[in-house]
Amino acid sequence: MSESPSKSSFTLIISCPDEVGIVAAICQFIAQRGGSLIESNQHTDVEQGWFYLRNVIDGQSLSIDENRFREEFAPLADKFSMEWYLRDNSVPQRVAIMASHSSHCLADLLHRWKSNELNCTIPCVISNHENLRSMVEWHGIPFHHVPVPKEDKSEAFEKTANIIERHQAETIVLARYMQIIPPAICSSYSGRLINIHHSFLPSFIGANPYQKAYDRGVKLIGATCHYVTEDLDEGPIIEQDVIRVSHSCDKDDMVRLGRDVERSALSRGLRYHLEDRVIVRGNKTVVFTP
Amino acid sequence: MSESPSKSSFTLIISCPDEVGIVAAICQFIAQRGGSLIESNQHTDVEQGWFYLRNVIDGQSLSIDENRFREEFAPLADKFSMEWYLRDNSVPQRVAIMASHSSHCLADLLHRWKSNELNCTIPCVISNHENLRSMVEWHGIPFHHVPVPKEDKSEAFEKTANIIERHQAETIVLARYMQIIPPAICSSYSGRLINIHHSFLPSFIGANPYQKAYDRGVKLIGATCHYVTEDLDEGPIIEQDVIRVSHSCDKDDMVRLGRDVERSALSRGLRYHLEDRVIVRGNKTVVFTP
Amino acid sequence: MSESPSKSSFTLIISCPDEVGIVAAICQFIAQRGGSLIESNQHTDVEQGWFYLRNVIDGQSLSIDENRFREEFAPLADKFSMEWYLRDNSVPQRVAIMASHSSHCLADLLHRWKSNELNCTIPCVISNHENLRSMVEWHGIPFHHVPVPKEDKSEAFEKTANIIERHQAETIVLARYMQIIPPAICSSYSGRLINIHHSFLPSFIGANPYQKAYDRGVKLIGATCHYVTEDLDEGPIIEQDVIRVSHSCDKDDMVRLGRDVERSALSRGLRYHLEDRVIVRGNKTVVFTP
Amino acid sequence: MSESPSKSSFTLIISCPDEVGIVAAICQFIAQRGGSLIESNQHTDVEQGWFYLRNVIDGQSLSIDENRFREEFAPLADKFSMEWYLRDNSVPQRVAIMASHSSHCLADLLHRWKSNELNCTIPCVISNHENLRSMVEWHGIPFHHVPVPKEDKSEAFEKTANIIERHQAETIVLARYMQIIPPAICSSYSGRLINIHHSFLPSFIGANPYQKAYDRGVKLIGATCHYVTEDLDEGPIIEQDVIRVSHSCDKDDMVRLGRDVERSALSRGLRYHLEDRVIVRGNKTVVFTP
Repeated sequence: MSESPSKSSFTLIISCPDEVGIVAAICQFIAQRGGSLIESNQHTDVEQGWFYLRNVIDGQSLSIDENRFREEFAPLADKFSMEWYLRDNSVPQRVAIMASHSSHCLADLLHRWKSNELNCTIPCVISNHENLRSMVEWHGIPFHHVPVPKEDKSEAFEKTANIIERHQAETIVLARYMQIIPPAICSSYSGRLINIHHSFLPSFIGANPYQKAYDRGVKLIGATCHYVTEDLDEGPIIEQDVIRVSHSCDKDDMVRLGRDVERSALSRGLRYHLEDRVIVRGNKTVVFTP
Repeated sequence: MSESPSKSSFTLIISCPDEVGIVAAICQFIAQRGGSLIESNQHTDVEQGWFYLRNVIDGQSLSIDENRFREEFAPLADKFSMEWYLRDNSVPQRVAIMASHSSHCLADLLHRWKSNELNCTIPCVISNHENLRSMVEWHGIPFHHVPVPKEDKSEAFEKTANIIERHQAETIVLARYMQIIPPAICSSYSGRLINIHHSFLPSFIGANPYQKAYDRGVKLIGATCHYVTEDLDEGPIIEQDVIRVSHSCDKDDMVRLGRDVERSALSRGLRYHLEDRVIVRGNKTVVFTP
Repeated sequence: MSESPSKSSFTLIISCPDEVGIVAAICQFIAQRGGSLIESNQHTDVEQGWFYLRNVIDGQSLSIDENRFREEFAPLADKFSMEWYLRDNSVPQRVAIMASHSSHCLADLLHRWKSNELNCTIPCVISNHENLRSMVEWHGIPFHHVPVPKEDKSEAFEKTANIIERHQAETIVLARYMQIIPPAICSSYSGRLINIHHSFLPSFIGANPYQKAYDRGVKLIGATCHYVTEDLDEGPIIEQDVIRVSHSCDKDDMVRLGRDVERSALSRGLRYHLEDRVIVRGNKTVVFTP
Repeated sequence: MSESPSKSSFTLIISCPDEVGIVAAICQFIAQRGGSLIESNQHTDVEQGWFYLRNVIDGQSLSIDENRFREEFAPLADKFSMEWYLRDNSVPQRVAIMASHSSHCLADLLHRWKSNELNCTIPCVISNHENLRSMVEWHGIPFHHVPVPKEDKSEAFEKTANIIERHQAETIVLARYMQIIPPAICSSYSGRLINIHHSFLPSFIGANPYQKAYDRGVKLIGATCHYVTEDLDEGPIIEQDVIRVSHSCDKDDMVRLGRDVERSALSRGLRYHLEDRVIVRGNKTVVFTP
């Protein structure tokens, strides 16, 4: 499953109304251009009549280049009313990370990035606190401190948007950023703005989920990686994970244990996103896990 | 951990305000009567200043009998303002099971009971449907069909209460019973009325949790075993479990997969209850898992 | 994912050397005959250069019948050197179950079958003990008692083979059968003889795995569902599962806890097999989990 | 459960032959000195007739100091033939970490240490490679590069032993160190030398476990945190964890996925060790998990 980023490959993502002959048409198109399939995932939502496909194509097998592929594929895409894109996997995505005071998710992502686990570059980290600067800069990544004053946050978010734009980030990860993102950014980065919520959504929506979990006496706590929409904590879920707790855990223990599932859910969710395994439709996702 | 039911043993359960010397006093009391501890669990809720203890005592090591123990222990219990009881583990608890149309939880409990996994007798099964009669009777257990008409349920629940009383059930298990239990029964069987809810509470409270889970697009579904109180789905949680689902699961798949976690959460929860591992305080539980 | 057995559908299973154009050729073949894909799974083993496909085709969409499909598909299959078969999902597979003294796996399978979770019929249960007869017959399934004397087992296995043949079983499930199956049966039912081993293979191969696990002090125990080959405990693995144990578990506790993972691993493994999600190659499996 | 390291507390660890009255005697001893129990765990191995206890005592409640406690407790300990020790939790243990080329376990431990998750100091990191120096030094921890030449390793290990001694390390963690530790160090640090093995022991003992797991076609891979003894991969197990893999995982994917369970098993194992939750007896452990 692991397409080594150094090996040339393209990922073709398609979703469209289901119809007889779609797969045949797509695969014939690819085969006629010499394309060898490294990985292929399909899903048909029979109820909704909707078709989803992810094909990873060996780049060296293709007789045409990326742009030519797009040109020649367009008429076929139109015929089946496809939403689609082709990704060149040799070009790592640019991922801006936003963090607040907590280091655990950020440290985990930076380590995975440095270990070549994630096929992306990280052009910048933005935080409303200063405390993580040294860790970020040690990784050779620019750190931007953008305080977010309670009274007026608009200027801070304007500045934030500029930084992200300047760094040409395609995806934004909120690694426990803890600030509500303004609607403008949510819609600009629709399907590309990833959050980790520190509860097993839809349980304990909103602030202080660990306190709420402690008060309710649950026996498992969780974390949810999801795309951010204007509806707080209601966006499409990419990945979730849980961990067992007991009566002997106080709230601080839950916070500590929760960090482990936050890390794992976020890093898996981001990985799925970067490998184009996630297709959003409405408020739900198709996730072609390996 | 497994105290074989045939081997004579007593379980002493205590909860009280925390104080220096409680454990010493209790253990000295037991030791002075020759009592050998097979298993001992303690918990101190530092925040609440509350102490919890579960001691399993080898019956053959005790120099006094059960009643004498209770008599002699009472003054000590008073001194520390204990809530306490002593259980003779050679007397299996009497557990009435209530079920509706679905067989999976009931079949699982009956099989475990027949396999001597649960230290209880099952004096009766009550259902508002007829379809499970044969399965229950094959196990040699009386089956009572008590229909619950939508218009007026009071008579049905009066009848139900009579059956349970007649069978001298100490604990009631709702094995997917799907009817709201009237407050009178809830309070009579407080801490002894166990339900399995087919969601990871507090997510998807109320009816049709699998449909809600499907609509929300969660990546894990769960089940919750809890004591029933008058507040629907809000009682103290004993045990929870989850299972992974994907975009390829429709609602029926979730229902099917959910059965497995319903079974496991309910059977573990009941086991903990029958082994006196669960101590309720307020709306939360201490569960001394093995 | 759940193809309701009542709804007409066919599953096409293919494995062959990888080559450009295979998927296109297959899908074009299906599309030209009106075939609508309900589910499609593919895998390419890049290292081995081998291709695997599972397509579930809506039966009502096909313009030709099953036999015609086979005839017309054969030349294509030859061209790509395919190993392949087409399954009519409206014809449930015939599964003979063999059990010994333990009831838990058998009871679980029978309950799932009765609940329509498994798309199969169970023409018979064979056991070397008498104790499970009543349970099996209550389900309306013929029970055959075939004792296996230690001195000479050949006659017993001849009788067993006859019973299985007479009942035209396509698949045999060893639900904790605890006897070594003779090579002749292993090879006759290659890829169709499923065992549940009560350990996390390759740990604790051979007899008494729970005792060995207890002696080694492991913190997780497991179960392994695999196809049986002549090499004991070495056949292709279909599914595995684990459960946490602690120092407080004695060997009997491990046996009891292990039952739960034996049940879950076996029932999932059998389900995958019955849905033709498992393709064996060499000593390994491709399992297209839903 | 979380005893904040800043709050004064002592942990008393005892194991001895089981006898009536042990707990009473111990708890009376503590209570008579005003000691308030924050946490208490007991286990009786009935088969072996052996008793295990872990008591966490509130330091401020005690009327005597640490040394006096030890003096006064000694006669009681002798009477019951106890192996025992008392730990002052305000003095963090000194943990030396040894690593090789891989960064994931080391980075995880350093981050947890820096986040105050682990009650220890890390006086030094020793590695046979240079590549992790910068990461270690960024954390303000001395890094020692001790190459281990294939031809003669004795000098390297002598040097290693000196460094560890000089830094007065009480516990050594092998964070994927990948070299066999000589018997002298194993026995000097018996019960204080912790390794993470990259397989679910006893499966795939020895080198290249991920390759072996890939070749066998297992569906779960794991990691094992254990104390090192002279018998390679055979020491007492502290903690294990597993993660699901599929046919689509090649060996490199297994290596990558395995890192996550290596991290989690090692960090939990070390945490249990640092909180004196682990008692070794023979080749097995009692682990009082929270």
